[in-house]
Amino acid sequence: MLYHKKKIKSIYNFIHKPNLSLDKNFKLQSGDSILNPSIAYKTYGNLNKKKSNAILICHALTGDQYAAEYHPVTNKKGWWQDLIGKNKVFDTNKYFIISSNVLGGCMGTTGPNSINPITNKQYGLNFPEISIKDMVSLQIELVNSFGIEKLFCVVGGSMGGMQVLEWGINYSDRVRLLIPIATSYRHTAQNIAFHEAGRQAIKADPNWQNGNYNKKNTFPKQGLAAARSIAHITYMSEEHLETKFGRAKKVKPLSQIFEGSFEVESYLQYQGISFVERFDANSYLYLTRSMDRFDLSEEFKGSLDKAFISNVSRWLLISFTSDWLFPTSESKVIVNSLMANACDVSFVEIESNRGHDSFLIKVPRFYDILRGFLSGANN
Amino acid sequence: MLYHKKKIKSIYNFIHKPNLSLDKNFKLQSGDSILNPSIAYKTYGNLNKKKSNAILICHALTGDQYAAEYHPVTNKKGWWQDLIGKNKVFDTNKYFIISSNVLGGCMGTTGPNSINPITNKQYGLNFPEISIKDMVSLQIELVNSFGIEKLFCVVGGSMGGMQVLEWGINYSDRVRLLIPIATSYRHTAQNIAFHEAGRQAIKADPNWQNGNYNKKNTFPKQGLAAARSIAHITYMSEEHLETKFGRAKKVKPLSQIFEGSFEVESYLQYQGISFVERFDANSYLYLTRSMDRFDLSEEFKGSLDKAFISNVSRWLLISFTSDWLFPTSESKVIVNSLMANACDVSFVEIESNRGHDSFLIKVPRFYDILRGFLSGANN
Repeated sequence: MLYHKKKIKSIYNFIHKPNLSLDKNFKLQSGDSILNPSIAYKTYGNLNKKKSNAILICHALTGDQYAAEYHPVTNKKGWWQDLIGKNKVFDTNKYFIISSNVLGGCMGTTGPNSINPITNKQYGLNFPEISIKDMVSLQIELVNSFGIEKLFCVVGGSMGGMQVLEWGINYSDRVRLLIPIATSYRHTAQNIAFHEAGRQAIKADPNWQNGNYNKKNTFPKQGLAAARSIAHITYMSEEHLETKFGRAKKVKPLSQIFEGSFEVESYLQYQGISFVERFDANSYLYLTRSMDRFDLSEEFKGSLDKAFISNVSRWLLISFTSDWLFPTSESKVIVNSLMANACDVSFVEIESNRGHDSFLIKVPRFYDILRGFLSGANN
Repeated sequence: MLYHKKKIKSIYNFIHKPNLSLDKNFKLQSGDSILNPSIAYKTYGNLNKKKSNAILICHALTGDQYAAEYHPVTNKKGWWQDLIGKNKVFDTNKYFIISSNVLGGCMGTTGPNSINPITNKQYGLNFPEISIKDMVSLQIELVNSFGIEKLFCVVGGSMGGMQVLEWGINYSDRVRLLIPIATSYRHTAQNIAFHEAGRQAIKADPNWQNGNYNKKNTFPKQGLAAARSIAHITYMSEEHLETKFGRAKKVKPLSQIFEGSFEVESYLQYQGISFVERFDANSYLYLTRSMDRFDLSEEFKGSLDKAFISNVSRWLLISFTSDWLFPTSESKVIVNSLMANACDVSFVEIESNRGHDSFLIKVPRFYDILRGFLSGANN
């Protein structure tokens, strides 16, 4: 298997529709605000008359709104296309699926590379620091725009799971089911360290230009690719890496000793290159920071238990056995606090050797359990 | 705790002595050769008349010959200074300690930034690919230069442990005791992947100049610092990172949101910066490659058992409980093969929460066991 370098396309050529533009000064957790933010989103299926069948899908760090369709930049399958559609787990015959690009993202929702309407210039590093809570506040605006009072379900993995948790503590009365997958209520020092190594790699690329790469017509693709490679290792289990690649070597002339002579190197290089086609470096900096700063217990003086007092939603937490980035123990901490509040919570650890990325992969037991939980709540 | 950026010094200003220059064409495993290589080394203690008390210390990826004295560039304590000296574990009243910089290194032994005597230019990427076996072949030359027929002991951790293993299979008749610590007989796909992410970060730095940074009077310090940060995470246990830093935040103005607001980030940035003062980027590329390509079973058609047939040395393997880079299971594989050959082998897993770096830290039980093993062999 050989991965060839592809021509780098630009994500800035695409106009993302539909797009909801808010005519307001959107307040952030930090006290800062963003004038007239936009939300790029996709929907699948139809909203019923009672507006009771809406499911909000929250994407992970490098995901976007194109959850159930081929991606406009990469032409790859949507990240949850196997889960969302007619007769699939998130059945579009029954449910109205909403999938929006997060605040700070780079696929149409306002982010560091959007134009600041006050200055008419790109935000760049003048974009304010955003939090997971801010992402959810913006999603509420979108949900309101549909006139939906209560979502049937909010679901997401990894950073998406963090958003689900925020929904849970801020808007429990506005959502029936909450499904945080492969996530945690706050980053460990190791989680932060891996992100920091990636951010260092981006900032080490002089094409980053202190965040002004668009103005200078450059792009820190090598730095962003390196950041992606680091992260990608943490998304895979050691077992899967070993099974997939082991020490398989590519044949290579000795003169190219640093072009990568192991399969796993080519794969990482390919992943990095393919990633820079569809993602923005400043967004990566802002979103990883939001994850690092996320701490659900912070506003409850460090008590996670207090976060779930009088929570009225029904919860399902899911973790995967080989996920070492957000291991099962992280989910258990949350389950524990929910149970201390006598909340309606189920928890399952699913056997998978695919590491953190398991939530993006067709793991049959994972699909069965999601299907079962949704249909149980339908009764 | 705050880590301040220091002025970057250059490692190229130092002349490392003593230095053994070989007047020969030194053959490499690849078939290539290096003309008149040099070996920079340090010794501690005195060689006895019988020349029977010599211990060879093999350094890890980023170590060097300055094992038991303050480092000439950083002024930091030697990496095994607590272990080597009068009345210490490697007691210089009794033993003659030899510590040399590896082939491909950057502290005086011939490496990619040495002058090629054939062209009178720096090797750069024209330096031939080197292996762990080549490092050991060069060490043999140094040992011969002292007229030592049989070393009392060869010891080292991590990449140093790989060298010990090579000594074991190639020169078992020339060494009494072998102590490979926190090591493995070949890299896993995950080990390779972490190294590859680091190499990508170096190559992403335009100051790398395709390896010709010295000629251009630049240095890829940001890329090398990022590579070091990635590696550093793998050297520490998650528990230690959490205990040391947790989520402790530094006070910082919001305008500097990307300067790192967690302690762990500052620490990683400091580690990266302090590392580039004393290490060379091309050496890092060559040495990580040697580790990735190391596979003790390769010349035995994949059978590790065959590597140890009629091995006459006495072995002690040591691993650490929280080392997830070279976990205990890796040491056990080697022990298993040694035992299948009825070799004289002891093995101990030492309790430590300091991860892979435990072999560089004063872990009392580790010191006791080394001391016991050495004194047992003295009888």
